[in-house]
Amino acid sequence: MNERQAVVLLSGGLDSTTVLAIAQSLGFTCNCLSFQYGQRQSVELDRARVIGRLAGVARHLVLRVDLDAIGGSALTTAIEVPKDRPLNEMEQDIPVTYVPGRNILFLAHALSWAEVLGVSDIFLGINAVDYSGYPDCRPQFLQAFEQMANLGTKAGTTGRPFRLHAPLIQLSKKEIILKGMELGVDYSLTHSCYDPAGDKACGRCDACQLRLQGFREAGLIDPAPYVQR
Amino acid sequence: MNERQAVVLLSGGLDSTTVLAIAQSLGFTCNCLSFQYGQRQSVELDRARVIGRLAGVARHLVLRVDLDAIGGSALTTAIEVPKDRPLNEMEQDIPVTYVPGRNILFLAHALSWAEVLGVSDIFLGINAVDYSGYPDCRPQFLQAFEQMANLGTKAGTTGRPFRLHAPLIQLSKKEIILKGMELGVDYSLTHSCYDPAGDKACGRCDACQLRLQGFREAGLIDPAPYVQR
Repeated sequence: MNERQAVVLLSGGLDSTTVLAIAQSLGFTCNCLSFQYGQRQSVELDRARVIGRLAGVARHLVLRVDLDAIGGSALTTAIEVPKDRPLNEMEQDIPVTYVPGRNILFLAHALSWAEVLGVSDIFLGINAVDYSGYPDCRPQFLQAFEQMANLGTKAGTTGRPFRLHAPLIQLSKKEIILKGMELGVDYSLTHSCYDPAGDKACGRCDACQLRLQGFREAGLIDPAPYVQR
Repeated sequence: MNERQAVVLLSGGLDSTTVLAIAQSLGFTCNCLSFQYGQRQSVELDRARVIGRLAGVARHLVLRVDLDAIGGSALTTAIEVPKDRPLNEMEQDIPVTYVPGRNILFLAHALSWAEVLGVSDIFLGINAVDYSGYPDCRPQFLQAFEQMANLGTKAGTTGRPFRLHAPLIQLSKKEIILKGMELGVDYSLTHSCYDPAGDKACGRCDACQLRLQGFREAGLIDPAPYVQR
């Protein structure tokens, strides 16, 4: 058992990069897990690799997840990514960028790897404030996943229960950014855009708008490159 | 929504093939899901394809799951598969052939695909009798997964809850075989062995022993090819 080790889901975005910094600040040696799942924004993965390396993580595993074969989402198929949506509209419904079961799949892989490594603590950057429309970003979902994990694994049923940590779950984007700045996160490396042009963020999709608003509210300028902002 | 459609996890083994027959006998149009996960017994997948085709299923999707990259199990790495174990010894502990989180990963993929298809019913062949040592083969695990699924998905939170069906969960191998024979399952096509030689089962691993004992108890001869039995 590795008491002070953790598995950290790292997408290369603002949230998960902040979570990695938080896990390290709590004294955890981190094993980062990223996914190649046919996403348009594969620039994320390159950033994740750089971020992991610069943070000096113990391991960084990139797994292939066949979400593109499963299909049915704007992030993996040709549905148009919405642009310039008013922020209040984003909060009203489940966006078309929702990938069915994505966090469940990611967490299932994290759980499997954590069990192999003998690690009980899993960190992830889900957030119930900015992404209130995603059912798999809510605290009650996380609790249910933890319960399921501890009933369905050898570790969980033999006295080494898994603990899911979602330190951002109740934070606003502004609060996340301020927390990360306090911990020295270099946000110029992070990538959030659903529809980037090369390594530049579009500035107009939901993710870009929420991120830019977060920096504005924090009284800061987002150091990441944008096509427009 | 497809009221009378189901997603069926089909490995090509005796149990899941019986489950497919049961789902069809209940009137479900079946969408079969199989996995390529670096298993030694890839002959299973070939059988699954044949079984699905002969059963006239609506769709058959084979997804890649990176269990071999995650590592740590006799089914995917070089740990020796136990042979000639007494049946009562199998029941005492979690076998080395346990793949951490395998059923969780498989169910997570099934859930994602079911949501894309608009299907609420998922069938799987897990069994709590012969595989009592596997934590992810128990009814309480299934209930917890269903609860998690219905909190973590768009379908589950908008009035189309998922239902997991494990019709074999309380059946002995003998009872499974008798049920399948009643439904016309051709068991010569199914494959259960952990360590086959070509398309022949070894006859000595836990899976072979349980299967052969099931046929004996049912008063039948297993029509599948074996190296020895």
